[in-house]
Amino acid sequence: MNKTTATGFFEDLRNRICAEFEQLETELANGPLAQEDAGRFNRKKWYRTDEEGLPGGGGEISIMKGRVFEKVGVNISTVTGCFTPAFRSQIPSAEDSEGKYWAAGISLVAHMQSPHVPAVHMNLRMIQTSKTWLGGGTDLTPVFPNERDTRDFHAALKDCCDRHDPTYYPEFKSWCDRYFYLPHREEPRGIGGIFYDYIDTGDWGRDFAFSEDVGETFLKIYPEIVRRHMNENWTDADREVQLIKRGRYVEFNLLYDRGTQFGLKTGGNTEAILMSMPPTVKWD
Amino acid sequence: MNKTTATGFFEDLRNRICAEFEQLETELANGPLAQEDAGRFNRKKWYRTDEEGLPGGGGEISIMKGRVFEKVGVNISTVTGCFTPAFRSQIPSAEDSEGKYWAAGISLVAHMQSPHVPAVHMNLRMIQTSKTWLGGGTDLTPVFPNERDTRDFHAALKDCCDRHDPTYYPEFKSWCDRYFYLPHREEPRGIGGIFYDYIDTGDWGRDFAFSEDVGETFLKIYPEIVRRHMNENWTDADREVQLIKRGRYVEFNLLYDRGTQFGLKTGGNTEAILMSMPPTVKWD
Repeated sequence: MNKTTATGFFEDLRNRICAEFEQLETELANGPLAQEDAGRFNRKKWYRTDEEGLPGGGGEISIMKGRVFEKVGVNISTVTGCFTPAFRSQIPSAEDSEGKYWAAGISLVAHMQSPHVPAVHMNLRMIQTSKTWLGGGTDLTPVFPNERDTRDFHAALKDCCDRHDPTYYPEFKSWCDRYFYLPHREEPRGIGGIFYDYIDTGDWGRDFAFSEDVGETFLKIYPEIVRRHMNENWTDADREVQLIKRGRYVEFNLLYDRGTQFGLKTGGNTEAILMSMPPTVKWD
Repeated sequence: MNKTTATGFFEDLRNRICAEFEQLETELANGPLAQEDAGRFNRKKWYRTDEEGLPGGGGEISIMKGRVFEKVGVNISTVTGCFTPAFRSQIPSAEDSEGKYWAAGISLVAHMQSPHVPAVHMNLRMIQTSKTWLGGGTDLTPVFPNERDTRDFHAALKDCCDRHDPTYYPEFKSWCDRYFYLPHREEPRGIGGIFYDYIDTGDWGRDFAFSEDVGETFLKIYPEIVRRHMNENWTDADREVQLIKRGRYVEFNLLYDRGTQFGLKTGGNTEAILMSMPPTVKWD
Protein backbone atom coordinates (compact mmCIF):
# COMPACT_ATOMS: atom_id res chain seq x y z
CA MET A 1 0.00 0.00 0.00
CA ASN A 2 2.70 2.47 1.07
CA LYS A 3 4.84 1.25 -1.83
CA THR A 4 2.05 1.96 -4.31
CA THR A 5 1.53 5.40 -2.80
CA ALA A 6 5.24 6.16 -3.14
CA THR A 7 5.71 4.88 -6.69
CA GLY A 8 2.47 6.57 -7.77
CA PHE A 9 3.67 9.88 -6.35
CA PHE A 10 7.14 9.59 -7.94
CA GLU A 11 5.57 8.96 -11.35
CA ASP A 12 3.06 11.78 -11.00
CA LEU A 13 5.75 14.19 -9.81
CA ARG A 14 7.94 13.17 -12.76
CA ASN A 15 5.05 13.94 -15.14
CA ARG A 16 4.41 17.36 -13.62
CA ILE A 17 8.11 18.29 -13.51
CA CYS A 18 8.57 17.29 -17.16
CA ALA A 19 5.49 19.29 -18.18
CA GLU A 20 6.71 22.36 -16.30
CA PHE A 21 10.22 22.11 -17.75
CA GLU A 22 8.78 21.81 -21.28
CA GLN A 23 6.70 24.89 -20.48
CA LEU A 24 9.93 26.77 -19.62
CA GLU A 25 11.35 25.68 -22.98
CA THR A 26 8.26 27.11 -24.68
CA GLU A 27 8.38 30.39 -22.77
CA LEU A 28 11.99 31.34 -23.63
CA ALA A 29 11.82 34.70 -25.41
CA ASN A 30 15.30 36.24 -25.37
CA GLY A 31 18.95 35.40 -25.09
CA PRO A 32 21.46 33.71 -27.44
CA LEU A 33 19.34 30.59 -28.06
CA ALA A 34 15.86 32.10 -28.42
CA GLN A 35 15.80 31.18 -32.14
CA GLU A 36 16.36 27.47 -31.43
CA ASP A 37 13.51 24.98 -31.14
CA ALA A 38 11.97 24.40 -27.73
CA GLY A 39 13.14 21.08 -26.26
CA ARG A 40 10.87 18.12 -25.50
CA PHE A 41 11.50 15.08 -23.28
CA ASN A 42 12.30 11.65 -24.68
CA ARG A 43 11.49 8.63 -22.53
CA LYS A 44 13.22 5.30 -22.32
CA LYS A 45 12.27 2.37 -20.10
CA TRP A 46 14.93 0.07 -18.71
CA TYR A 47 14.84 -3.26 -16.91
CA ARG A 48 17.35 -5.04 -14.73
CA THR A 49 18.10 -8.50 -13.47
CA ASP A 50 18.93 -8.64 -9.79
CA GLU A 51 21.99 -10.04 -8.02
CA GLU A 52 20.64 -13.59 -8.48
CA GLY A 53 19.73 -13.22 -12.15
CA LEU A 54 15.98 -12.78 -11.48
CA PRO A 55 13.83 -9.91 -12.80
CA GLY A 56 14.76 -7.00 -10.53
CA GLY A 57 12.46 -4.21 -11.65
CA GLY A 58 13.61 -1.22 -13.65
CA GLY A 59 12.75 2.33 -14.41
CA GLU A 60 12.23 5.06 -16.93
CA ILE A 61 14.64 7.79 -17.95
CA SER A 62 13.28 11.08 -19.34
CA ILE A 63 15.91 13.17 -21.10
CA MET A 64 15.50 16.60 -22.67
CA LYS A 65 18.15 18.54 -24.60
CA GLY A 66 16.68 21.95 -25.18
CA ARG A 67 17.34 25.67 -25.45
CA VAL A 68 16.87 26.40 -21.72
CA PHE A 69 17.88 22.98 -20.39
CA GLU A 70 21.10 21.98 -22.13
CA LYS A 71 20.56 18.50 -20.67
CA VAL A 72 18.10 17.44 -18.01
CA GLY A 73 17.51 13.85 -16.94
CA VAL A 74 14.69 12.67 -14.73
CA ASN A 75 14.77 9.03 -13.73
CA ILE A 76 12.12 7.06 -11.84
CA SER A 77 12.83 3.51 -10.78
CA THR A 78 11.52 0.65 -8.67
CA VAL A 79 14.01 -2.12 -8.07
CA THR A 80 14.20 -5.26 -5.96
CA GLY A 81 17.06 -7.59 -5.18
CA CYS A 82 19.36 -8.95 -2.57
CA PHE A 83 22.45 -7.11 -1.27
CA THR A 84 25.66 -9.15 -1.33
CA PRO A 85 26.85 -10.12 2.17
CA ALA A 86 29.64 -7.50 1.93
CA PHE A 87 27.09 -4.69 1.48
CA ARG A 88 24.55 -5.85 4.02
CA SER A 89 26.52 -4.57 6.96
CA GLN A 90 26.46 -1.03 5.51
CA ILE A 91 22.67 -0.88 5.05
CA PRO A 92 20.18 -0.49 7.93
CA SER A 93 18.55 -3.81 8.83
CA ALA A 94 19.68 -5.51 5.63
CA GLU A 95 21.12 -8.33 7.73
CA ASP A 96 17.66 -9.05 9.18
CA SER A 97 16.09 -9.18 5.71
CA GLU A 98 18.85 -11.57 4.56
CA GLY A 99 19.90 -8.82 2.18
CA LYS A 100 16.52 -8.49 0.47
CA TYR A 101 15.58 -4.96 -0.51
CA TRP A 102 12.98 -2.95 -2.36
CA ALA A 103 13.79 0.60 -3.46
CA ALA A 104 11.97 3.24 -5.44
CA GLY A 105 12.70 6.85 -6.23
CA ILE A 106 12.89 9.82 -8.48
CA SER A 107 16.19 11.46 -9.36
CA LEU A 108 16.75 14.62 -11.38
CA VAL A 109 19.80 16.56 -12.57
CA ALA A 110 19.55 19.64 -14.81
CA HIS A 111 22.48 21.32 -16.59
CA MET A 112 21.40 24.62 -18.10
CA GLN A 113 22.37 26.41 -21.32
CA SER A 114 22.68 29.78 -19.61
CA PRO A 115 25.55 30.33 -17.20
CA HIS A 116 23.11 32.57 -15.30
CA VAL A 117 20.64 29.77 -14.58
CA PRO A 118 21.81 27.44 -11.78
CA ALA A 119 22.15 23.69 -12.27
CA VAL A 120 20.03 21.65 -9.88
CA HIS A 121 19.70 18.19 -8.38
CA MET A 122 16.67 16.64 -6.68
CA ASN A 123 16.11 13.12 -5.42
CA LEU A 124 13.43 11.35 -3.35
CA ARG A 125 13.71 7.69 -2.40
CA MET A 126 12.00 5.00 -0.36
CA ILE A 127 13.95 1.93 0.70
CA GLN A 128 12.76 -1.23 2.41
CA THR A 129 14.84 -4.00 3.97
CA SER A 130 13.38 -5.30 7.24
CA LYS A 131 12.88 -1.59 7.94
CA THR A 132 11.42 1.06 5.67
CA TRP A 133 12.84 4.54 5.38
CA LEU A 134 12.79 7.68 3.28
CA GLY A 135 15.57 9.87 1.98
CA GLY A 136 16.02 12.70 -0.45
CA GLY A 137 16.95 16.30 -0.95
CA THR A 138 17.69 19.02 -3.44
CA ASP A 139 20.65 21.33 -3.93
CA LEU A 140 21.41 24.24 -6.25
CA THR A 141 24.67 24.78 -8.17
CA PRO A 142 24.89 28.27 -9.64
CA VAL A 143 27.90 29.30 -11.71
CA PHE A 144 27.61 32.87 -10.39
CA PRO A 145 25.90 32.69 -6.99
CA ASN A 146 23.34 35.39 -6.47
CA GLU A 147 22.02 36.48 -3.10
CA ARG A 148 18.36 36.56 -4.04
CA ASP A 149 18.32 33.04 -5.56
CA THR A 150 20.26 31.59 -2.64
CA ARG A 151 17.96 33.24 -0.12
CA ASP A 152 14.74 32.20 -1.88
CA PHE A 153 15.85 28.62 -2.50
CA HIS A 154 16.78 28.15 1.15
CA ALA A 155 13.68 30.00 2.38
CA ALA A 156 11.43 27.68 0.35
CA LEU A 157 13.17 24.62 1.78
CA LYS A 158 13.07 26.00 5.32
CA ASP A 159 9.32 26.68 5.04
CA CYS A 160 8.82 23.18 3.68
CA CYS A 161 10.83 21.56 6.50
CA ASP A 162 9.22 23.73 9.19
CA ARG A 163 5.74 22.53 8.14
CA HIS A 164 6.82 19.03 9.25
CA ASP A 165 9.43 19.31 12.01
CA PRO A 166 11.32 22.37 13.27
CA THR A 167 14.51 20.32 13.65
CA TYR A 168 14.54 19.23 9.99
CA TYR A 169 15.84 22.34 8.23
CA PRO A 170 18.97 23.02 10.31
CA GLU A 171 19.83 19.33 10.39
CA PHE A 172 19.22 18.61 6.71
CA LYS A 173 20.84 21.85 5.50
CA SER A 174 23.96 21.00 7.43
CA TRP A 175 23.91 17.40 6.13
CA CYS A 176 23.70 18.80 2.60
CA ASP A 177 26.67 21.13 3.20
CA ARG A 178 28.76 18.24 4.53
CA TYR A 179 27.71 15.87 1.76
CA PHE A 180 28.12 18.11 -1.30
CA TYR A 181 31.68 19.18 -0.54
CA LEU A 182 34.85 18.56 -2.60
CA PRO A 183 37.70 18.18 -0.08
CA HIS A 184 40.39 18.10 -2.80
CA ARG A 185 39.18 21.50 -4.04
CA GLU A 186 38.23 22.80 -0.60
CA GLU A 187 35.01 23.91 -2.30
CA PRO A 188 31.31 23.24 -1.76
CA ARG A 189 29.56 21.89 -4.87
CA GLY A 190 27.08 24.76 -4.90
CA ILE A 191 25.05 26.85 -2.49
CA GLY A 192 23.51 23.82 -0.78
CA GLY A 193 19.94 22.94 0.02
CA ILE A 194 18.80 19.94 2.07
CA PHE A 195 19.86 16.30 2.24
CA TYR A 196 18.19 13.68 4.43
CA ASP A 197 18.17 9.92 4.83
CA TYR A 198 16.93 7.14 7.16
CA ILE A 199 13.70 8.97 8.01
CA ASP A 200 11.48 6.53 9.89
CA THR A 201 9.52 8.09 12.76
CA GLY A 202 7.14 5.12 12.93
CA ASP A 203 4.42 7.13 11.13
CA TRP A 204 5.04 6.44 7.44
CA GLY A 205 2.19 8.67 6.27
CA ARG A 206 3.61 11.63 8.10
CA ASP A 207 7.15 10.86 6.88
CA PHE A 208 6.03 10.49 3.29
CA ALA A 209 4.08 13.75 3.45
CA PHE A 210 7.43 15.44 4.10
CA SER A 211 9.04 13.84 1.02
CA GLU A 212 6.00 14.83 -1.05
CA ASP A 213 6.36 18.38 0.20
CA VAL A 214 10.07 18.44 -0.76
CA GLY A 215 9.04 17.40 -4.29
CA GLU A 216 6.31 20.04 -4.48
CA THR A 217 8.61 22.71 -3.07
CA PHE A 218 11.24 21.89 -5.69
CA LEU A 219 8.62 22.07 -8.44
CA LYS A 220 7.62 25.54 -7.28
CA ILE A 221 10.95 27.23 -6.43
CA TYR A 222 13.27 25.93 -9.16
CA PRO A 223 11.16 27.03 -12.16
CA GLU A 224 10.78 30.43 -10.44
CA ILE A 225 14.58 30.81 -10.34
CA VAL A 226 14.90 29.62 -13.97
CA ARG A 227 12.31 32.20 -15.14
CA ARG A 228 14.25 34.97 -13.38
CA HIS A 229 17.36 34.43 -15.48
CA MET A 230 16.62 32.40 -18.60
CA ASN A 231 16.06 35.40 -20.89
CA GLU A 232 19.34 37.12 -19.94
CA ASN A 233 22.27 37.28 -22.33
CA TRP A 234 25.66 35.78 -21.55
CA THR A 235 29.19 36.12 -22.85
CA ASP A 236 31.69 33.52 -24.05
CA ALA A 237 33.67 34.25 -20.88
CA ASP A 238 30.58 33.42 -18.73
CA ARG A 239 30.19 30.19 -20.67
CA GLU A 240 33.84 29.25 -20.04
CA VAL A 241 33.38 29.70 -16.30
CA GLN A 242 30.27 27.50 -16.49
CA LEU A 243 32.09 24.70 -18.35
CA ILE A 244 34.93 24.71 -15.79
CA LYS A 245 32.43 24.73 -12.91
CA ARG A 246 30.81 21.64 -14.46
CA GLY A 247 34.11 19.82 -14.08
CA ARG A 248 33.64 20.10 -10.31
CA TYR A 249 30.21 18.52 -10.72
CA VAL A 250 31.78 15.58 -12.56
CA GLU A 251 34.53 15.29 -9.95
CA PHE A 252 31.98 15.24 -7.13
CA ASN A 253 29.71 12.67 -8.76
CA LEU A 254 32.45 10.25 -9.78
CA LEU A 255 34.76 10.64 -6.75
CA TYR A 256 32.31 11.04 -3.87
CA ASP A 257 28.63 10.56 -4.68
CA ARG A 258 27.37 7.47 -2.82
CA GLY A 259 24.63 6.72 -5.34
CA THR A 260 26.98 6.91 -8.32
CA GLN A 261 29.76 4.84 -6.76
CA PHE A 262 27.32 2.33 -5.28
CA GLY A 263 25.26 2.08 -8.45
CA LEU A 264 28.16 1.65 -10.87
CA LYS A 265 30.03 -0.80 -8.68
CA THR A 266 26.96 -3.02 -8.07
CA GLY A 267 25.82 -3.41 -11.64
CA GLY A 268 23.24 -0.61 -11.69
CA ASN A 269 21.94 0.88 -14.94
CA THR A 270 24.94 2.87 -16.21
CA GLU A 271 22.87 5.08 -18.51
CA ALA A 272 20.46 6.03 -15.71
CA ILE A 273 23.26 6.64 -13.21
CA LEU A 274 25.43 8.71 -15.55
CA MET A 275 22.43 10.69 -16.78
CA SER A 276 23.79 13.20 -14.23
CA MET A 277 26.95 13.89 -16.27
CA PRO A 278 26.99 17.38 -17.82
CA PRO A 279 26.70 17.53 -21.63
CA THR A 280 29.88 19.59 -22.16
CA VAL A 281 32.69 20.14 -19.68
CA LYS A 282 36.13 21.71 -19.62
CA TRP A 283 39.15 21.34 -17.39
CA ASP A 284 41.86 24.01 -17.30
CA MET B 1 72.69 7.04 -4.75
CA ASN B 2 69.88 5.04 -6.42
CA LYS B 3 67.49 7.82 -5.51
CA THR B 4 69.67 10.41 -7.22
CA THR B 5 69.96 8.19 -10.29
CA ALA B 6 66.18 7.84 -10.45
CA THR B 7 65.28 11.50 -9.92
CA GLY B 8 68.02 12.56 -12.34
CA PHE B 9 66.64 10.23 -14.99
CA PHE B 10 63.04 11.37 -14.46
CA GLU B 11 64.07 15.00 -14.88
CA ASP B 12 66.19 14.32 -17.94
CA LEU B 13 63.43 12.22 -19.53
CA ARG B 14 60.94 15.01 -18.81
CA ASN B 15 63.24 17.48 -20.58
CA ARG B 16 63.66 15.28 -23.63
CA ILE B 17 59.94 14.45 -23.87
CA CYS B 18 59.00 18.13 -23.65
CA ALA B 19 61.58 19.04 -26.31
CA GLU B 20 60.28 16.31 -28.65
CA PHE B 21 56.64 17.30 -28.11
CA GLU B 22 57.50 20.94 -28.86
CA GLN B 23 59.23 19.70 -31.99
CA LEU B 24 55.97 18.00 -33.05
CA GLU B 25 54.17 21.29 -32.49
CA THR B 26 56.70 23.00 -34.78
CA GLU B 27 56.47 20.34 -37.48
CA LEU B 28 52.67 20.45 -37.95
CA ALA B 29 52.08 21.36 -41.61
CA ASN B 30 48.49 20.45 -42.50
CA GLY B 31 45.09 19.92 -40.99
CA PRO B 32 42.47 22.23 -39.45
CA LEU B 33 44.85 23.87 -36.95
CA ALA B 34 47.99 24.32 -39.08
CA GLN B 35 47.52 28.12 -39.03
CA GLU B 36 47.59 28.28 -35.22
CA ASP B 37 50.76 28.99 -33.26
CA ALA B 38 52.93 26.08 -32.22
CA GLY B 39 52.48 25.30 -28.51
CA ARG B 40 55.21 25.62 -25.88
CA PHE B 41 55.39 24.15 -22.37
CA ASN B 42 54.83 26.19 -19.24
CA ARG B 43 56.41 24.99 -16.02
CA LYS B 44 55.22 25.37 -12.47
CA LYS B 45 56.93 24.09 -9.33
CA TRP B 46 54.87 22.96 -6.36
CA TYR B 47 55.71 22.05 -2.78
CA ARG B 48 53.87 20.06 -0.17
CA THR B 49 53.83 19.59 3.56
CA ASP B 50 53.68 15.98 4.65
CA GLU B 51 51.17 14.21 6.91
CA GLU B 52 52.89 15.71 9.98
CA GLY B 53 53.11 19.25 8.66
CA LEU B 54 56.81 19.02 7.74
CA PRO B 55 58.29 19.86 4.33
CA GLY B 56 57.40 16.84 2.19
CA GLY B 57 59.06 17.56 -1.13
CA GLY B 58 57.19 18.59 -4.24
CA GLY B 59 57.43 18.57 -7.96
CA GLU B 60 57.14 20.40 -11.22
CA ILE B 61 54.24 20.37 -13.66
CA SER B 62 54.88 21.10 -17.35
CA ILE B 63 51.74 21.92 -19.29
CA MET B 64 51.40 22.65 -23.00
CA LYS B 65 48.23 23.67 -24.83
CA GLY B 66 49.11 23.58 -28.48
CA ARG B 67 47.90 22.86 -32.00
CA VAL B 68 48.90 19.16 -31.96
CA PHE B 69 48.60 18.59 -28.22
CA GLU B 70 45.29 20.04 -27.08
CA LYS B 71 46.54 19.57 -23.52
CA VAL B 72 49.54 17.62 -22.33
CA GLY B 73 50.79 17.53 -18.76
CA VAL B 74 54.09 16.09 -17.62
CA ASN B 75 54.68 16.02 -13.89
CA ILE B 76 57.84 15.03 -12.05
CA SER B 77 57.81 14.78 -8.29
CA THR B 78 59.84 13.65 -5.31
CA VAL B 79 57.89 13.40 -2.07
CA THR B 80 58.49 12.13 1.44
CA GLY B 81 56.15 11.55 4.32
CA CYS B 82 54.54 9.07 6.62
CA PHE B 83 51.49 6.99 5.68
CA THR B 84 48.64 7.12 8.19
CA PRO B 85 48.22 3.83 10.08
CA ALA B 86 45.10 3.01 8.00
CA PHE B 87 47.13 3.12 4.77
CA ARG B 88 50.21 1.31 6.00
CA SER B 89 48.60 -2.11 5.76
CA GLN B 90 47.94 -1.58 2.04
CA ILE B 91 51.53 -0.66 1.13
CA PRO B 92 54.41 -3.17 0.95
CA SER B 93 56.60 -2.99 4.08
CA ALA B 94 55.17 0.32 5.18
CA GLU B 95 54.51 -1.19 8.61
CA ASP B 96 58.24 -1.95 9.02
CA SER B 97 59.20 1.62 8.09
CA GLU B 98 56.62 2.95 10.60
CA GLY B 99 54.81 4.41 7.61
CA LYS B 100 57.78 6.44 6.35
CA TYR B 101 58.03 6.64 2.57
CA TRP B 102 60.00 8.27 -0.21
CA ALA B 103 58.54 8.34 -3.70
CA ALA B 104 59.61 9.85 -7.00
CA GLY B 105 58.27 9.62 -10.50
CA ILE B 106 57.28 11.05 -13.82
CA SER B 107 53.71 11.03 -15.02
CA LEU B 108 52.38 12.12 -18.39
CA VAL B 109 48.94 12.37 -20.01
CA ALA B 110 48.38 13.81 -23.50
CA HIS B 111 44.99 14.71 -25.00
CA MET B 112 45.33 15.50 -28.68
CA GLN B 113 43.60 18.02 -30.94
CA SER B 114 43.14 15.52 -33.75
CA PRO B 115 40.67 12.66 -33.26
CA HIS B 116 43.07 10.64 -35.41
CA VAL B 117 45.99 10.97 -32.99
CA PRO B 118 45.64 8.69 -29.93
CA ALA B 119 45.73 10.01 -26.38
CA VAL B 120 48.50 8.52 -24.27
CA HIS B 121 49.54 7.99 -20.68
CA MET B 122 53.00 7.14 -19.33
CA ASN B 123 54.24 6.86 -15.76
CA LEU B 124 57.44 5.67 -14.07
CA ARG B 125 57.84 5.63 -10.30
CA MET B 126 60.23 4.54 -7.56
CA ILE B 127 58.93 4.00 -4.05
CA GLN B 128 60.79 3.31 -0.84
CA THR B 129 59.41 2.21 2.52
CA SER B 130 61.57 -0.41 4.23
CA LYS B 131 61.66 -1.93 0.75
CA THR B 132 62.35 -0.21 -2.57
CA TRP B 133 60.45 -0.97 -5.72
CA LEU B 134 59.72 0.29 -9.21
CA GLY B 135 56.49 0.61 -11.13
CA GLY B 136 55.23 2.20 -14.30
CA GLY B 137 53.78 1.67 -17.71
CA THR B 138 52.24 3.31 -20.72
CA ASP B 139 48.96 2.82 -22.55
CA LEU B 140 47.42 4.22 -25.71
CA THR B 141 43.83 5.48 -26.10
CA PRO B 142 42.89 6.00 -29.74
CA VAL B 143 39.46 7.33 -30.67
CA PHE B 144 39.48 5.23 -33.84
CA PRO B 145 41.79 2.26 -33.23
CA ASN B 146 44.02 1.46 -36.15
CA GLU B 147 45.72 -1.88 -36.69
CA ARG B 148 49.13 -0.50 -37.58
CA ASP B 149 49.37 1.83 -34.56
CA THR B 150 48.19 -0.89 -32.19
CA ARG B 151 50.65 -3.40 -33.61
CA ASP B 152 53.61 -1.01 -33.55
CA PHE B 153 52.90 0.32 -30.05
CA HIS B 154 52.69 -3.19 -28.63
CA ALA B 155 55.68 -4.41 -30.68
CA ALA B 156 57.84 -1.59 -29.30
CA LEU B 157 56.81 -2.45 -25.73
CA LYS B 158 57.33 -6.17 -26.30
CA ASP B 159 60.85 -5.56 -27.66
CA CYS B 160 61.57 -3.33 -24.68
CA CYS B 161 60.31 -5.92 -22.16
CA ASP B 162 62.06 -8.81 -23.92
CA ARG B 163 65.42 -7.03 -23.61
CA HIS B 164 65.04 -7.39 -19.82
CA ASP B 165 62.94 -10.46 -19.04
CA PRO B 166 60.90 -12.68 -21.36
CA THR B 167 58.13 -12.99 -18.77
CA TYR B 168 57.60 -9.21 -18.53
CA TYR B 169 55.61 -8.44 -21.67
CA PRO B 170 52.84 -11.05 -21.35
CA GLU B 171 52.52 -10.34 -17.64
CA PHE B 172 52.57 -6.54 -17.86
CA LYS B 173 50.34 -6.40 -20.95
CA SER B 174 47.74 -8.49 -19.17
CA TRP B 175 48.05 -6.34 -16.01
CA CYS B 176 47.44 -3.27 -18.16
CA ASP B 177 44.34 -4.82 -19.76
CA ARG B 178 42.92 -5.70 -16.34
CA TYR B 179 43.79 -2.31 -14.85
CA PHE B 180 42.56 0.04 -17.60
CA TYR B 181 39.07 -1.46 -17.84
CA LEU B 182 35.71 0.23 -17.17
CA PRO B 183 33.41 -2.48 -15.77
CA HIS B 184 30.33 -0.21 -15.81
CA ARG B 185 30.82 0.32 -19.57
CA GLU B 186 32.17 -3.16 -20.23
CA GLU B 187 34.88 -1.35 -22.22
CA PRO B 188 38.68 -1.21 -22.08
CA ARG B 189 40.03 2.36 -21.77
CA GLY B 190 42.04 2.03 -24.96
CA ILE B 191 44.17 -0.53 -26.77
CA GLY B 192 46.37 -1.23 -23.76
CA GLY B 193 50.12 -1.27 -23.36
CA ILE B 194 51.99 -2.36 -20.23
CA PHE B 195 51.47 -1.78 -16.50
CA TYR B 196 53.84 -3.01 -13.79
CA ASP B 197 54.43 -2.48 -10.09
CA TYR B 198 56.40 -3.86 -7.12
CA ILE B 199 59.46 -4.70 -9.24
CA ASP B 200 62.29 -5.60 -6.88
CA THR B 201 64.49 -8.46 -8.07
CA GLY B 202 67.25 -7.58 -5.61
CA ASP B 203 69.31 -5.97 -8.38
CA TRP B 204 68.17 -2.35 -8.43
CA GLY B 205 70.44 -1.38 -11.30
CA ARG B 206 68.96 -4.05 -13.50
CA ASP B 207 65.41 -3.17 -12.44
CA PHE B 208 65.93 0.51 -13.06
CA ALA B 209 67.42 -0.18 -16.49
CA PHE B 210 64.03 -1.66 -17.40
CA SER B 211 62.15 1.47 -16.26
CA GLU B 212 64.64 3.62 -18.20
CA ASP B 213 64.01 1.50 -21.25
CA VAL B 214 60.23 1.92 -20.89
CA GLY B 215 60.75 5.69 -20.84
CA GLU B 216 63.04 5.60 -23.89
CA THR B 217 60.66 3.29 -25.75
CA PHE B 218 57.76 5.65 -25.09
CA LEU B 219 59.82 8.60 -26.31
CA LYS B 220 60.53 6.77 -29.55
CA ILE B 221 57.20 5.10 -30.41
CA TYR B 222 54.64 7.71 -29.39
CA PRO B 223 56.02 10.60 -31.46
CA GLU B 224 56.24 8.18 -34.39
CA ILE B 225 52.49 7.48 -34.09
CA VAL B 226 51.72 11.20 -33.69
CA ARG B 227 53.69 12.04 -36.88
CA ARG B 228 51.73 9.42 -38.82
CA HIS B 229 48.41 11.15 -38.22
CA MET B 230 48.88 14.72 -37.09
CA ASN B 231 48.63 16.26 -40.56
CA GLU B 232 45.36 14.49 -41.43
CA ASN B 233 42.06 16.35 -41.61
CA TRP B 234 39.10 15.50 -39.43
CA THR B 235 35.37 16.19 -39.43
CA ASP B 236 33.07 17.63 -36.77
CA ALA B 237 31.60 14.13 -36.43
CA ASP B 238 35.09 12.69 -35.70
CA ARG B 239 35.56 15.40 -33.08
CA GLU B 240 32.23 14.52 -31.40
CA VAL B 241 33.28 10.89 -31.11
CA GLN B 242 36.58 12.04 -29.58
CA LEU B 243 34.85 14.24 -26.98
CA ILE B 244 32.51 11.40 -25.94
CA LYS B 245 35.46 8.97 -25.76
CA ARG B 246 37.18 11.43 -23.41
CA GLY B 247 34.26 11.04 -21.02
CA ARG B 248 35.34 7.42 -20.55
CA TYR B 249 38.84 8.68 -19.69
CA VAL B 250 37.37 10.94 -17.01
CA GLU B 251 35.19 8.13 -15.68
CA PHE B 252 38.17 5.80 -15.45
CA ASN B 253 40.44 8.29 -13.74
CA LEU B 254 37.92 9.48 -11.16
CA LEU B 255 36.16 6.16 -10.46
CA TYR B 256 38.98 3.63 -10.65
CA ASP B 257 42.50 5.03 -11.00
CA ARG B 258 44.46 4.17 -7.86
CA GLY B 259 46.79 7.15 -8.16
CA THR B 260 43.97 9.65 -8.57
CA GLN B 261 41.79 8.27 -5.77
CA PHE B 262 44.77 7.80 -3.46
CA GLY B 263 46.26 11.18 -4.28
CA LEU B 264 43.08 13.20 -3.88
CA LYS B 265 41.97 11.44 -0.72
CA THR B 266 45.36 11.82 1.00
CA GLY B 267 45.92 15.51 0.39
CA GLY B 268 48.05 15.22 -2.76
CA ASN B 269 48.55 18.15 -5.10
CA THR B 270 45.15 18.49 -6.78
CA GLU B 271 46.48 20.44 -9.76
CA ALA B 272 49.18 17.86 -10.48
CA ILE B 273 46.79 14.92 -10.03
CA LEU B 274 44.00 16.38 -12.17
CA MET B 275 46.45 17.47 -14.86
CA SER B 276 45.22 14.23 -16.47
CA MET B 277 41.69 15.57 -17.04
CA PRO B 278 40.89 16.21 -20.72
CA PRO B 279 40.51 19.87 -21.76
CA THR B 280 37.02 19.44 -23.28
CA VAL B 281 34.65 16.54 -22.78
CA LYS B 282 31.08 15.63 -23.69
CA TRP B 283 28.56 13.19 -22.32
CA ASP B 284 25.57 12.06 -24.40
